[in-house]
Amino acid sequence: MTDPVRVLVWGENHHEKVDAVPQRIYPDTMHGTIAAALRQHLGDADVVETATFDDAEHGLTEERLQRTDVLLWWGHMRHDDVDDEVVARVHRHVLGGMGLIALHSAHFSKIFIALMGTTCSLRWRQGDDRELVWTVAPTHPIAQGVPQPIVLPAQEMYGEFFDVPTPDDLVFVSGFTGGEVFRSGMTFSRGHGRIFYFSPGDQDYPVYHDPSIQLVLANAVRWAHQDRPRTSPRIAMHETGDFHTPREWDGTPL
Amino acid sequence: MTDPVRVLVWGENHHEKVDAVPQRIYPDTMHGTIAAALRQHLGDADVVETATFDDAEHGLTEERLQRTDVLLWWGHMRHDDVDDEVVARVHRHVLGGMGLIALHSAHFSKIFIALMGTTCSLRWRQGDDRELVWTVAPTHPIAQGVPQPIVLPAQEMYGEFFDVPTPDDLVFVSGFTGGEVFRSGMTFSRGHGRIFYFSPGDQDYPVYHDPSIQLVLANAVRWAHQDRPRTSPRIAMHETGDFHTPREWDGTPL
Amino acid sequence: MTDPVRVLVWGENHHEKVDAVPQRIYPDTMHGTIAAALRQHLGDADVVETATFDDAEHGLTEERLQRTDVLLWWGHMRHDDVDDEVVARVHRHVLGGMGLIALHSAHFSKIFIALMGTTCSLRWRQGDDRELVWTVAPTHPIAQGVPQPIVLPAQEMYGEFFDVPTPDDLVFVSGFTGGEVFRSGMTFSRGHGRIFYFSPGDQDYPVYHDPSIQLVLANAVRWAHQDRPRTSPRIAMHETGDFHTPREWDGTPL
Amino acid sequence: MTDPVRVLVWGENHHEKVDAVPQRIYPDTMHGTIAAALRQHLGDADVVETATFDDAEHGLTEERLQRTDVLLWWGHMRHDDVDDEVVARVHRHVLGGMGLIALHSAHFSKIFIALMGTTCSLRWRQGDDRELVWTVAPTHPIAQGVPQPIVLPAQEMYGEFFDVPTPDDLVFVSGFTGGEVFRSGMTFSRGHGRIFYFSPGDQDYPVYHDPSIQLVLANAVRWAHQDRPRTSPRIAMHETGDFHTPREWDGTPL
Repeated sequence: MTDPVRVLVWGENHHEKVDAVPQRIYPDTMHGTIAAALRQHLGDADVVETATFDDAEHGLTEERLQRTDVLLWWGHMRHDDVDDEVVARVHRHVLGGMGLIALHSAHFSKIFIALMGTTCSLRWRQGDDRELVWTVAPTHPIAQGVPQPIVLPAQEMYGEFFDVPTPDDLVFVSGFTGGEVFRSGMTFSRGHGRIFYFSPGDQDYPVYHDPSIQLVLANAVRWAHQDRPRTSPRIAMHETGDFHTPREWDGTPL
Repeated sequence: MTDPVRVLVWGENHHEKVDAVPQRIYPDTMHGTIAAALRQHLGDADVVETATFDDAEHGLTEERLQRTDVLLWWGHMRHDDVDDEVVARVHRHVLGGMGLIALHSAHFSKIFIALMGTTCSLRWRQGDDRELVWTVAPTHPIAQGVPQPIVLPAQEMYGEFFDVPTPDDLVFVSGFTGGEVFRSGMTFSRGHGRIFYFSPGDQDYPVYHDPSIQLVLANAVRWAHQDRPRTSPRIAMHETGDFHTPREWDGTPL
Repeated sequence: MTDPVRVLVWGENHHEKVDAVPQRIYPDTMHGTIAAALRQHLGDADVVETATFDDAEHGLTEERLQRTDVLLWWGHMRHDDVDDEVVARVHRHVLGGMGLIALHSAHFSKIFIALMGTTCSLRWRQGDDRELVWTVAPTHPIAQGVPQPIVLPAQEMYGEFFDVPTPDDLVFVSGFTGGEVFRSGMTFSRGHGRIFYFSPGDQDYPVYHDPSIQLVLANAVRWAHQDRPRTSPRIAMHETGDFHTPREWDGTPL
Repeated sequence: MTDPVRVLVWGENHHEKVDAVPQRIYPDTMHGTIAAALRQHLGDADVVETATFDDAEHGLTEERLQRTDVLLWWGHMRHDDVDDEVVARVHRHVLGGMGLIALHSAHFSKIFIALMGTTCSLRWRQGDDRELVWTVAPTHPIAQGVPQPIVLPAQEMYGEFFDVPTPDDLVFVSGFTGGEVFRSGMTFSRGHGRIFYFSPGDQDYPVYHDPSIQLVLANAVRWAHQDRPRTSPRIAMHETGDFHTPREWDGTPL
């Protein structure tokens, strides 16, 4: 009844190669940890794979994206080194209907900035904050079954103003020990694609091992998945009374 | 150029009569304090008056509402005792274009609940929390000139889930010492009227003496004011091609 | 994998008893026609029943609502005769998580007005208009598989301004031969419940026999269904650091 | 009381140079006609200027943008020839607080696409359609005093799906003779800037001579204007308890 979902978890895989703390917390890498969690939550028919920055074309070839329903993206230190052509390709696939889940520091990824049109800047602190993730949209599919609040004993602080467009749905708002607040779970539609931004998940804290965070990600994958042909909206001329034949400027059917 | 605004600050005036702390903090009553602050911020042509629960018809006669552009409402202990007929009258005026600013515990006022259609419930604590009021919509008129954040050294905690409809604009989000967060400034349109809910302002803390809070209230009054005839939307039949003659079911012009 | 959905289609059943045109178009009544269509679209495990105005307590007893996941509502001539106690009961169940789909002239039903807080008025014409239903949110679950546009050769005209709050999602906008437009498919969340308003469906036109309209209704039923206990949001005091024990004013756990 | 507004009307000025119909309809050019109308509506202290594609740097130098509060943009045939550096400059100023009003075929301008993150595609027809512009947000400042509907006897048809993000406010929806509908007036916030898209205004119809259209544009200019320093949001580290000192990664104050 429910279509199988083909998920691709993209990890920058930089901290995992060079930093001791993430290596200790995530011996299987962050993307590997997320992928394993999704496999547990999703059905047997669903497929969860991973790709990283170092793969050819960052592991995001045209062929790979064509068979991806939902792409999760974690990046941080190497945003600027991501190939512009690959970014444009991912952008096109999102507008064509591929789901995108941008995680934590991916707020500054090229693909997220291109989709938002804003600076995507925020305030932050690497400190000793506890993060509480509060549901403010209890009817949203991504919030189903999620505890109120999710308690993350330690996390990097992300605070407002977060410069993104008004979301379609504000699902989660986080509060930090220092008093800062953050719109930590937000949905956006762009073209035919559904996007979810979710801020918990710094490399220095074991956030992706938290069962509630894993539930949010699994809910988000199901929500972002659509069963549709991969086609972007496009301009079309329509003659009077002919609603179903898109045409070029000169009347030629597309 | 800017039309004068006629403002009415409604106070329940219960705590001011019976409780020592509010009496000490607000020797001129809460509504009196708010009204004085608005007089300072608004222009000389604007008129700011007050009304209270104990006035005849709670001070909210038909004649009074007809000459009110923006009504501010503070209530707490006597919500249930507000006359249903007066509530219906205020409701009608809001739908007809009168601005309404619901303050703090007015989340549980009959008029706010009737306009929202929800329970308007929330979590709360009378404790030792500091409240930080963060702007999340810096382009909104109500946020102009407001510091980021407003720091209220002590306030009652209001926390999520706050059961109201998705607002038109989420302007402020508050964070509390205890880690709770709250959508503390929200706008709604209902009929021809503009509504702003603003949560800071418990009777036991000197919140309405804070200059930044006063600025928010003055901004909100200007924003909620519209220069329009006081008429609610109403059903009307329109004949084909006649867009400007509203009619009864039988064709009689209204 | 997908939970079974228990659907209740409520019909006023007035036109079906007294008017020739609806009797001819809908020999099985409007609610009967809608229920049959839903049975075709939904799974075998789902249950679709009907209730009408003339049933005891309008067929909407506490027990009946407790076992209803999604309620569809069609009413027109007898809005004022619906029992206020039953309306309050349905309202409570929506806030507790029951889905509600308000159809066509149900814009003026007591339950819809109570949930919206506005007049819910609009412009209208019983004429010779063709209605085109355009999808403006192609990523929304309710729009999946729906043709662009749905062509309804004849329909009553409903036009703007439609006095409802800004919806969570604007899914469909209709255009009529006479030039009027209408936000014809809108979602709202209230409390824990999801609401969809869908305007096509006058008693004098065979709209509910249209396969695309039936698909929209089936999509809407699936979207409005949530697997959650039937509980409304409620006010609760929380002590500092105790996020999971809701309490009364005096500290007693609820 | 109200700050003076410095308005810049940017016109591509291509049709005015090469096509007979626009030359006849707009002997003073389109941007010239719009500027003249704005001068009539705004106050004596306000300043309305024009710039065109053929000016050095398209008339949009850094210095010029710094003293522009609201930029109106009309373009059509030469979108691709607009210099990317100038587009980036305008983008930066919008995020810094400059208002932007994108007109008609500017839906396909580089600057609008960059701000939206979508294809901005739509359906269209150069035909014999009448356009009716309906207000669906009567409380919005841009709709104040605007007739319901605005009747444009002839206009190019723009129809849904219009691939833009969900707007902050949907102010106007248009209906066309052919039955198509279009979200013709929408607001967006990006960074510190306010954006209004308004679709009426093809070069082959005298739309900008219509007094109601001119009123919409004047309302939009006032709405888009903010009295604020021209600064974009930017990332900043904040130490615990220090909400007002933005810092670099290493703690240096910005």
